[in-house]
Amino acid sequence: MKKYLKLDKAHLLINHGPVCLITSYDGKKANIMTVAWTTPINWEPPLIGVVIGEQAYSLKNILKTNEFAINIPTRKILKETIFCGSTSGKNIDKFKETGLTKCQADKIKVPLIKECIGHIECRVFKKYKFGDSVLFIGEVLSASVDDDLFDKCLRVDKLAGKTLHHLGGKYFTIPEKIISERS
Amino acid sequence: MKKYLKLDKAHLLINHGPVCLITSYDGKKANIMTVAWTTPINWEPPLIGVVIGEQAYSLKNILKTNEFAINIPTRKILKETIFCGSTSGKNIDKFKETGLTKCQADKIKVPLIKECIGHIECRVFKKYKFGDSVLFIGEVLSASVDDDLFDKCLRVDKLAGKTLHHLGGKYFTIPEKIISERS
Repeated sequence: MKKYLKLDKAHLLINHGPVCLITSYDGKKANIMTVAWTTPINWEPPLIGVVIGEQAYSLKNILKTNEFAINIPTRKILKETIFCGSTSGKNIDKFKETGLTKCQADKIKVPLIKECIGHIECRVFKKYKFGDSVLFIGEVLSASVDDDLFDKCLRVDKLAGKTLHHLGGKYFTIPEKIISERS
Repeated sequence: MKKYLKLDKAHLLINHGPVCLITSYDGKKANIMTVAWTTPINWEPPLIGVVIGEQAYSLKNILKTNEFAINIPTRKILKETIFCGSTSGKNIDKFKETGLTKCQADKIKVPLIKECIGHIECRVFKKYKFGDSVLFIGEVLSASVDDDLFDKCLRVDKLAGKTLHHLGGKYFTIPEKIISERS
């Protein structure tokens, strides 16, 4: 079961810096792209920034439809996450190649990835080009998370909640446990 | 001992999404601010995005000097990191209050925090306002890291390399170990 988050809480899915799978759709084929370069931007309106290389196949999908979704993968799909980050969707269907499952979004035409624990649906609010990168500022239209994996915060202490954090190259890390000031 | 990183590798200090301590300086007093909302933006020129609330005392420092530094704290200074994120520098000197140690930067007048394991010196390249937030795009002028804590990537598997990742509210997580596709 999933539960919906208030839009100004959507950023709590990425606040700790996990790798994200960005889905996009050109009207015919959906694509999946792995990105580590994201950040919350603002609460009201709820905005999230996502950086995409100008060579990325996903770029033209997003420019065409002005929509994308942020899907939060975990260690369980590390292999698929690396695959989607090291191949182009130009000549392949990454959903088919990985076996990841499409599910319908609430507010946009872009499919979500069922195997991910959290989903944020975005419409492009602004975009800026810097060097070889495009920074998309997405306005959050809907956000949801696996019911078991969120109470006061994302439950990265649970086995099913081990988000992936990209250290560069082929190296990732996963969260150990939840700590607070008294830990 | 610290070693310098090539400027297009500076982003590897924040690629996995750690909380950062932003230092700034108005010519008289330095300030420290805790931020979770950062992202690499581009390699060449090397750019990093940092989001700061418009109410933050650090904002006027950065607007005045167009400089800031990104310091990477670890679990060892969790208490100081939380303190700097929950107090304003308007009426206090956070270096004095926390006991954190200033050290000189290479390219900017803003002091760095000695107890942090990595440092990125930035000059403001662009800035954008969204709602109550200001997104600073900083150009990296210098970047360094503790020699023991970086080889192919940041060594978050070592005790001294346990960066902090903010889950929201009073909750943080720390990295467990380094994994790659074969793990």
